[in-house]
Amino acid sequence: MGVFGAIIFLFLGSVKGFSTKSEPCTYNTGSLCKPALANALFSTIAFLLGATTSVLSGFLGMKIATYANARTTLEARKGVGKAFIVAFRSGAVMGFLLAASGLLVLYVSIHLFSLYYGDDWEGLYESITGYGLGGSSMALFGRVGGGIYTKAADVGADLVGKVERNIPEDDPRNPAVIADNVGDNVGDIAGMGSDLFGSYAESSCAALFVASISSFGISHDYTAMSYPLIISSVGIVVCLGTTLFATDFVEIKNVSEIEPSLKRQLVISTVLMTAGIAIVSFFALPSEFTLFNFGSTKTVKNWHLFFCVSIGLWAGLVIGYTTEYYTSNAYSPVQDVADSCRTGAATNVIFGLALGYKSVIIPIFAIAIAIYVSFSMAAMYGIAVAALGMLSTIATGLAIDAYGPISDNAGGIAEMAGMSHKIRQRTDALDAAGNTTAAIGKGFAIGSAALVSLALFGAFVSRAGIETVDVLTPKVFIGLIVGAMLPYWFSAMTMKSVGSAALKMVEEVRRQFNTIPGLMEGRAKPDYATCVKISTDASLREMIPPGALVMLTPLIAGTLFGVETLAGVLAGSLVSGVQVAISASNTGGAWDNAKKYIEAGASEHARSLGPKGSDPHKAAVIGDTIGDPLKDTSGPSLNILIKLMAVESLVFAPFFATHGGLLFKLL
Amino acid sequence: MGVFGAIIFLFLGSVKGFSTKSEPCTYNTGSLCKPALANALFSTIAFLLGATTSVLSGFLGMKIATYANARTTLEARKGVGKAFIVAFRSGAVMGFLLAASGLLVLYVSIHLFSLYYGDDWEGLYESITGYGLGGSSMALFGRVGGGIYTKAADVGADLVGKVERNIPEDDPRNPAVIADNVGDNVGDIAGMGSDLFGSYAESSCAALFVASISSFGISHDYTAMSYPLIISSVGIVVCLGTTLFATDFVEIKNVSEIEPSLKRQLVISTVLMTAGIAIVSFFALPSEFTLFNFGSTKTVKNWHLFFCVSIGLWAGLVIGYTTEYYTSNAYSPVQDVADSCRTGAATNVIFGLALGYKSVIIPIFAIAIAIYVSFSMAAMYGIAVAALGMLSTIATGLAIDAYGPISDNAGGIAEMAGMSHKIRQRTDALDAAGNTTAAIGKGFAIGSAALVSLALFGAFVSRAGIETVDVLTPKVFIGLIVGAMLPYWFSAMTMKSVGSAALKMVEEVRRQFNTIPGLMEGRAKPDYATCVKISTDASLREMIPPGALVMLTPLIAGTLFGVETLAGVLAGSLVSGVQVAISASNTGGAWDNAKKYIEAGASEHARSLGPKGSDPHKAAVIGDTIGDPLKDTSGPSLNILIKLMAVESLVFAPFFATHGGLLFKLL
Repeated sequence: MGVFGAIIFLFLGSVKGFSTKSEPCTYNTGSLCKPALANALFSTIAFLLGATTSVLSGFLGMKIATYANARTTLEARKGVGKAFIVAFRSGAVMGFLLAASGLLVLYVSIHLFSLYYGDDWEGLYESITGYGLGGSSMALFGRVGGGIYTKAADVGADLVGKVERNIPEDDPRNPAVIADNVGDNVGDIAGMGSDLFGSYAESSCAALFVASISSFGISHDYTAMSYPLIISSVGIVVCLGTTLFATDFVEIKNVSEIEPSLKRQLVISTVLMTAGIAIVSFFALPSEFTLFNFGSTKTVKNWHLFFCVSIGLWAGLVIGYTTEYYTSNAYSPVQDVADSCRTGAATNVIFGLALGYKSVIIPIFAIAIAIYVSFSMAAMYGIAVAALGMLSTIATGLAIDAYGPISDNAGGIAEMAGMSHKIRQRTDALDAAGNTTAAIGKGFAIGSAALVSLALFGAFVSRAGIETVDVLTPKVFIGLIVGAMLPYWFSAMTMKSVGSAALKMVEEVRRQFNTIPGLMEGRAKPDYATCVKISTDASLREMIPPGALVMLTPLIAGTLFGVETLAGVLAGSLVSGVQVAISASNTGGAWDNAKKYIEAGASEHARSLGPKGSDPHKAAVIGDTIGDPLKDTSGPSLNILIKLMAVESLVFAPFFATHGGLLFKLL
Repeated sequence: MGVFGAIIFLFLGSVKGFSTKSEPCTYNTGSLCKPALANALFSTIAFLLGATTSVLSGFLGMKIATYANARTTLEARKGVGKAFIVAFRSGAVMGFLLAASGLLVLYVSIHLFSLYYGDDWEGLYESITGYGLGGSSMALFGRVGGGIYTKAADVGADLVGKVERNIPEDDPRNPAVIADNVGDNVGDIAGMGSDLFGSYAESSCAALFVASISSFGISHDYTAMSYPLIISSVGIVVCLGTTLFATDFVEIKNVSEIEPSLKRQLVISTVLMTAGIAIVSFFALPSEFTLFNFGSTKTVKNWHLFFCVSIGLWAGLVIGYTTEYYTSNAYSPVQDVADSCRTGAATNVIFGLALGYKSVIIPIFAIAIAIYVSFSMAAMYGIAVAALGMLSTIATGLAIDAYGPISDNAGGIAEMAGMSHKIRQRTDALDAAGNTTAAIGKGFAIGSAALVSLALFGAFVSRAGIETVDVLTPKVFIGLIVGAMLPYWFSAMTMKSVGSAALKMVEEVRRQFNTIPGLMEGRAKPDYATCVKISTDASLREMIPPGALVMLTPLIAGTLFGVETLAGVLAGSLVSGVQVAISASNTGGAWDNAKKYIEAGASEHARSLGPKGSDPHKAAVIGDTIGDPLKDTSGPSLNILIKLMAVESLVFAPFFATHGGLLFKLL
């Protein structure tokens, strides 16, 4: 944080040679704006605030999760309904904590910054974009580092424990079992949390930045200006009401009610939120105003913005439900994949990959429609608030997402504590529902990342002073094709990172089984700490190359090739990365649930493929192991790739616009 | 062909309401051009000529290949050098036949069309673009249909023969063995041939179309106009000389000399061709001329074009060698993948996918540099001739590519004829070298497809009268993101097609083993014809959905959403499809050769993983089977997706420009 903060200060400060003189404003011509040096300083402060908030939310989220999972196990003795409520409420604490602290810090920062900036809203909201960059750069650690952490531990534990030593999952004799449990929290709580926090901070900042140069920004209409923040606030209230449907209004009595109850959360919050958006749009906004639209202005009505926010919200629901359809074993796609295990692991992999590719279609059409409507109605501001719409139910989304790893670890604790089979069955049922909601959460995260990146991309283009990003110019096209390549490069890195970190874990687990006497018999304790240390060290070391790729690409492209090429890179990585991310997540999710489908044996068809240990089941296990890094590391990490490159470009845009394109200038 | 020809005629004829009156020219303002109806008629004729030439070349290529493989087997009795010469010369016949007939028919068509068009070169070369569409649409059958054919037979034969019945590959008792051999010819000879023929026809047409509206086109300088054709002619002569290095100047005495000899062909032809390009550029072109550049003109010197063609040529070599590095088991990437088989099939798949993703980096940079240089120097004409440069050594490329299936089937014939182990060893050595050159050929095909599509895309934009393709407009952006999704949709279809066709084959092979008495003992003959019929029927039926996706997308996008959205779709599918195609081909190639690496056991490391039947070998076989549809069906088929959509858009551009965008007009 310190190093990157210093880089931000130096790059942005150098734009006007660290001058402390006020400058004429870029958009609100005629007025004087604060000097570039102030922008550099406040952007750095905003960056540090965003990063700290993200870290703090992740830290508290993990704390809550680790407190909650043992309690969930204990409640499971009383029944599945009680356990569900504890797990869900703990997830909700995480969700609300993140949504609320993100909003609060942003709100307070704006007010503190305005003490200096006064009426210079252009400068104020420009420097606030640093908040988004801060939130997003911490997500690099949470998502990429966390993803490597959790899968190194998971794959390492499984390869030796389940395959070589034939001991059950979560068995306390396995030295990597604690690292695996820690990994669930690191990857799914801190990783998902920081990813969505980043999206949330970025889309708010993008919306605020674009709003500051709109007609109500220039006329200093504070209520209209705060529209993005009010939407998020209403979202928190709506989600608060929605949780009551899961914990108070309806009681879970049966295992089969868990998944519908979680899914209902999404629908209820979406319906309620649509009404909330309508109210906010009609009361907070002037009935007509103008927005800045790449050099020209665009007249917009308040009901236009209602449609922009709502379509983002509903697109999120469509993406969530499509993800569920392709990854839940209640529907035919996953059942077909399970069926293909009959002819072996190869057909399982072929059908799984094909499923992932196919699952891209509907989400992309949903995103495209959301983009078309919001873009046409309110230009880049429309896209930014559409992203905020999708994220307005973030508290509910995170609640049902964080519920997953809590239930997962509750099951682990039941196993390790030697509790009865009945309790383990209850926690397993909670966990199975968590798997599907985790997939839905990933779908949301990717969809919002796509919208957020586009909004940031638009803000970058405005700020860099580019009029058009014409594909038919060599500078833009090479950016586009190289940008479309980056998700592949990045995925290759993260997948190999998991592979080599898992291999180190395998060696350590083998070593402990071979050298600690009485470990297999349960008479001696394994050295859990060394495995945790291996995962921690490996994840931190292995995230350096992919992290460097993300952080350096905009700097290199912008400095050497200039803003047009960088714009191409951003567009290319966005449109290509979304596809890779969705297909990787869903392929992995489908393999996981195909395996669970065979293991559970709930239908005639499923039983014909099982039981555990049959040839089709072995083929399904191979698919599941391949899917682990796809769905939990390389896939979701791409969100960070596309968002972080976009927000970094936005923050450094003044620098690139002034000093960029060195290579072309030399030629 | 008939139906699609009729559609072309009706769509293009309707542009000016089937009027037979001459119109003022679009670019060469002041002169009168032939009516749109003539354009419709001649485009249709050119389409039929292109399609017929492609079919004829494919048919003759397969004839040659089927004559050649038995002869190669017989020559193998005399020694590996003799067999190599027969196989290579037969491949060369295919290569030269295709390159020469493509050029000849194009040349003759231009002359016949000019009898009607006279001085109206704009109309003449506009209607000639139908030739490219014809060549490319037949490639849909060759590549997609052929890819499904060959892999259905291959996977079906292996799953029952090798896995269930434990009989060797190419064993005459396997009912699917003939279908498998036929498939090699259909997929690798007809498929690859029609793919490269399509690229060749399209890039020639794109170059000619752009040239017709340049200064030398308008001043009717016939030599300069024919520059693209002269480049191709010189390429044929250069390749002719190059083959002597493989067959006459250097004699193959040892198995280890085969692969270097084939690779040397590429380097020699590239070096010689560079000199050829220089000579043609200085003699055929005026020293300075102007090109049309999206509404403006661009002054270009003849040495600029030398660089454009050469950089395409050398980019092809870089792509070829990178492909070889990532797919040959002589280098560390494939050896690492083989090594990962130690921990099972899952790690093999993870490392293989990561390898494919990584292998995209260098080819994309090579393509990006080629695009930047040729685009900057000579706009869209530069890109078109860069593609022609890459394809100028097509005869050599096809020769070493067609050599592969010929050697493969020579081995099959040796096995079926019960020839000695020694002969089978010799044909295996020929085949192993063929695997690597096949991967190189695929690299070339994808690289040239990327350049060709961009050239066609540029020509489409010119012809549709669009000034800029601005990513930051909603119409273009939704096209871009949906376009980037199409390769995934298409791959999902082709992969499932192979899967379900293979399953049908499995059933038939099982049925024959179970019902024909004495088949396993070799006393009865299997019913080969039924298996051939299954592959044929399945490939034709299963190619309908992906074929429809390719053919209908431009029509729907253009008619409903208009030319801007269609431009976005083309750009998106191009930049995304190239990545998917390269990574799929190389992943599949790497798995294939990782398996061969373990089987051959040529090094200490390889022997530690083997022998055949060991656990790592079994894991490698799973990877190989997954790779089959990736490398031979879904990957290379994407070339057709990106090229065919672009050329179809180009041909229908006048229609879309006049009648397109219905949906937006209604809104």
